[in-house]
Amino acid sequence: MAHYNNLVRASLTDMYQVKMAWTDFATGRHEIPSTFDYFFRTAPFKGAFAVFGGLRQAMEFVNDYHFSAEDIFAFKMDPDMAHYTAEFWQWLGQIDCRDVRIYAPPEGTIIFPRTPVLRVEAPLAINKLLESTLLNQLNYPTLVATNAARIRLVAGWSKKIWEFGLRRAQGADGAVSGSLYCYLGGFDGTSNCLAGRLFGIPVKGTHAHSQVQGYKDSDLHHERIMGDRKTGEKFDLTEAAITARTTLQQHELVPDAKTNDAELAAFLDFGWKNPTNCLLLVDTFSVLRSGLTNFLAVAIALNRAGYRASGLRLDSGDLSYQSKEVRKTFIRVGEFFGFDYFGKMTITESNDLNVDVLEELNRTGNDADAYGIGTNAVTCEGQPALGGVYKLVDIAGTPRIKLSEDKIKITIPGQKNAWRLFGLQGAILDLMTSPQGTIPMPGQDILCCDPFDETKRAVVCPVSVKPLSTLVWDGVNINCSNDYTAMRSYVIEQLRSGQIRADHLRTLNPTPYKVSLSLELYQQMHDLMTEETTIERLT
Amino acid sequence: MAHYNNLVRASLTDMYQVKMAWTDFATGRHEIPSTFDYFFRTAPFKGAFAVFGGLRQAMEFVNDYHFSAEDIFAFKMDPDMAHYTAEFWQWLGQIDCRDVRIYAPPEGTIIFPRTPVLRVEAPLAINKLLESTLLNQLNYPTLVATNAARIRLVAGWSKKIWEFGLRRAQGADGAVSGSLYCYLGGFDGTSNCLAGRLFGIPVKGTHAHSQVQGYKDSDLHHERIMGDRKTGEKFDLTEAAITARTTLQQHELVPDAKTNDAELAAFLDFGWKNPTNCLLLVDTFSVLRSGLTNFLAVAIALNRAGYRASGLRLDSGDLSYQSKEVRKTFIRVGEFFGFDYFGKMTITESNDLNVDVLEELNRTGNDADAYGIGTNAVTCEGQPALGGVYKLVDIAGTPRIKLSEDKIKITIPGQKNAWRLFGLQGAILDLMTSPQGTIPMPGQDILCCDPFDETKRAVVCPVSVKPLSTLVWDGVNINCSNDYTAMRSYVIEQLRSGQIRADHLRTLNPTPYKVSLSLELYQQMHDLMTEETTIERLT
Repeated sequence: MAHYNNLVRASLTDMYQVKMAWTDFATGRHEIPSTFDYFFRTAPFKGAFAVFGGLRQAMEFVNDYHFSAEDIFAFKMDPDMAHYTAEFWQWLGQIDCRDVRIYAPPEGTIIFPRTPVLRVEAPLAINKLLESTLLNQLNYPTLVATNAARIRLVAGWSKKIWEFGLRRAQGADGAVSGSLYCYLGGFDGTSNCLAGRLFGIPVKGTHAHSQVQGYKDSDLHHERIMGDRKTGEKFDLTEAAITARTTLQQHELVPDAKTNDAELAAFLDFGWKNPTNCLLLVDTFSVLRSGLTNFLAVAIALNRAGYRASGLRLDSGDLSYQSKEVRKTFIRVGEFFGFDYFGKMTITESNDLNVDVLEELNRTGNDADAYGIGTNAVTCEGQPALGGVYKLVDIAGTPRIKLSEDKIKITIPGQKNAWRLFGLQGAILDLMTSPQGTIPMPGQDILCCDPFDETKRAVVCPVSVKPLSTLVWDGVNINCSNDYTAMRSYVIEQLRSGQIRADHLRTLNPTPYKVSLSLELYQQMHDLMTEETTIERLT
Repeated sequence: MAHYNNLVRASLTDMYQVKMAWTDFATGRHEIPSTFDYFFRTAPFKGAFAVFGGLRQAMEFVNDYHFSAEDIFAFKMDPDMAHYTAEFWQWLGQIDCRDVRIYAPPEGTIIFPRTPVLRVEAPLAINKLLESTLLNQLNYPTLVATNAARIRLVAGWSKKIWEFGLRRAQGADGAVSGSLYCYLGGFDGTSNCLAGRLFGIPVKGTHAHSQVQGYKDSDLHHERIMGDRKTGEKFDLTEAAITARTTLQQHELVPDAKTNDAELAAFLDFGWKNPTNCLLLVDTFSVLRSGLTNFLAVAIALNRAGYRASGLRLDSGDLSYQSKEVRKTFIRVGEFFGFDYFGKMTITESNDLNVDVLEELNRTGNDADAYGIGTNAVTCEGQPALGGVYKLVDIAGTPRIKLSEDKIKITIPGQKNAWRLFGLQGAILDLMTSPQGTIPMPGQDILCCDPFDETKRAVVCPVSVKPLSTLVWDGVNINCSNDYTAMRSYVIEQLRSGQIRADHLRTLNPTPYKVSLSLELYQQMHDLMTEETTIERLT
């Protein structure tokens, strides 16, 4: 398995990385061992957490890392590069990632600001060349998976959530990877056929408004001969539906209104040819004055043939009100006809849903079973980019710090392993330790220091410890999962089980999660801060 | 040339399109001639216009349209599709776009709400199957090109604008197509090597903070032997730079502060190995207390070898203030040393720039020559999705309307050609006419009707008329440009020449542009509205 997108290759990088690689090569610095951390400084969407996505595909990229002859030919045409030596082009043409080591938590892990997500050990020039592509391959997946998890948390666990974002996504890959990472973050599947095929995730869909629009009233009056599922007995589905519609209206089971015949014709054709998965979009004309009645007429007609209609979709108007009216009608009609399952037919809602709309639907009451979420799920309108960064933390065994007047921009120097320390009530904090330092162990006290505030320290005696820095690329093999269904289950387990406390997960004003350093790392960091700070002379 | 992205293929569609195609096939409706319009209802970013992007790549998709055996195999595994017939799979396996005709304005045309951007004539089932992919391939390109044009309008025509968005883009294609359509919309180029190679757009880049971070103070004191560009005379660039730094400080040409030696070492290595394009990032420690002085020291040293440093980049802090201080220093130092070009070295600014920040920089004054814009350029944080839609307007020669209680959602029925009517002061309005109706001609009066308001009508006698519905796909050949540099010039020409009035282009509260119907289309639309409206009985 290679990366699913042909655009993800070595030349998907920023030009300055190539110019830096040249400079390093020309000054003999390109092979200096270096470590970069990938991390983010603040969680997206004003939340406290993120869901780590993109690891497997990033490793597929690393596994196949090379510059093609075409890439190098293109570079050579650049006048800025005219003076680069043949030795450099030869070097660039043969580099790969065999000298690279990458550590990360499993994909799908709930991650927090500051904890290193990837630690990448590589020759200096290669580490720079990898930077832009890795950021591209991790930032958006993590953003989307986080967005999906937040939607899932607000929608609740009993609803189905389908991603419908293809048409508005940012490019083909915004759609395909958007589908994948929505699924990772807790959605049930997608409408996107290609994403389904590439990643084995469930794909759903029934019909659009265009299906209904294509019909005229006169299209209703065709015979639609159908056989009973068991007996094979033939009957006219059209006649059955028209009869049912009359019955529904005469017994005042549905609102008193003449329904649209073109719509009923479209519904009949759809149900006739898709009797095992007849889910109809009912808002082309009017949900309560036409679509609902026409849907029920077809559902009753299909029932005669032994098929159960799946349900309907609402795509405009007051979804809360409509869903409640539809549910009541389903129950009423089911009772009248003696069809138990009618009350439980699916109500799917769509139309610009996002976390805010879902919260509003929760407040006003909502009888939907499923949501279709498109634009917001994949484009993340609340924050369309994750500010993940890739920073040098060690060069040739010497820890490096990046100072800034803005404390949040200070990097935590040195190679670090990260651990999640659990108590009886779930995760207590994440701890970074030096790879040569003490490993946190269950049942043993360990001092955990806030990176910036020396008054914030805690001794933790964890019940269990989970390593967050495992070797996912050893120079030869990818050692991380490509089973997205399992990763999705892992995300859901973390979100549902209390492993991560609910106050860290909530959408509004969540409690920040503690991320801390071992005493050794804390001292190293603060020694470097003192050393590197320019002392101003005040006169 | 095929589509640059392997993900853009027939199976990049929503499942419901396939289910509708099956339904149409099974009921004998799949070959009914149909026309769909692609258009948008409101311009993005609270503006009044958009820049049409994505056409050529969409046509590449159409040109190569087919379902692969793998696609069909995957569909067949879906239990919802288990009952589809062998005839359908055979049909799906052999469809292409030879019976499709597509009309559109040239890519890069400034477009407005309501005017049909694409008119797609195709057999009904094929038109549905195309919908999702075409929307994906047009919405984001148009969104990004529009965002870029707005940035360009605010930045002004004298600045260079570079797109730096790869690391935060929504997927690999969000980056690659983001680069392309920023260029189309008026940017000068990108940092993205792959986008540059694929589309022949200019690529720029120099170095990052990581270049500086990798050095220690002790790295400064190495010999860096350089030959004079003309005479070949050798000298030590390090010594020249250290001498220059001392001179700069002794003559109080630069702020009085000890600069960072590691930074100077990094700058020297970069300048030494890239003397023809030495543009240095000066904010790793402090722009005014370290980076500027170190840059100047290297620039003076390079000058001794006959090379002119390109300039510097500011990436944090108060860009307006810094740029003015830097420019003053450039001029002062240039005068001291007698280097005329010093005052004109490039100041590039980056760091979360967007339209609002640029407007603020315009207000406070800014001495930059160039901007690097990343995240906002490609992810369009102001509005990360364009709501372009694809609506059925004609079936088998019968115009179709989609009514809605929300007037803005009413579609304009029937096949339409669009025209732009120009007066002496630029474009007056866009007019839609029936393909069989009167063609607007220069020097001839024509009645133009607001689609919704019968009191808003105007007789226009255009000076010139530009067709906006030309045949770009005739079933065999693509008839639209793939020359993105020419398209970009066309965008700039429309924005700069007054072809489109400035009040339509401004970022805040622009004047809406008039889009109108011929009397014939107006009457057809309103006849259909009357005909299709359900008359309620009030009791």
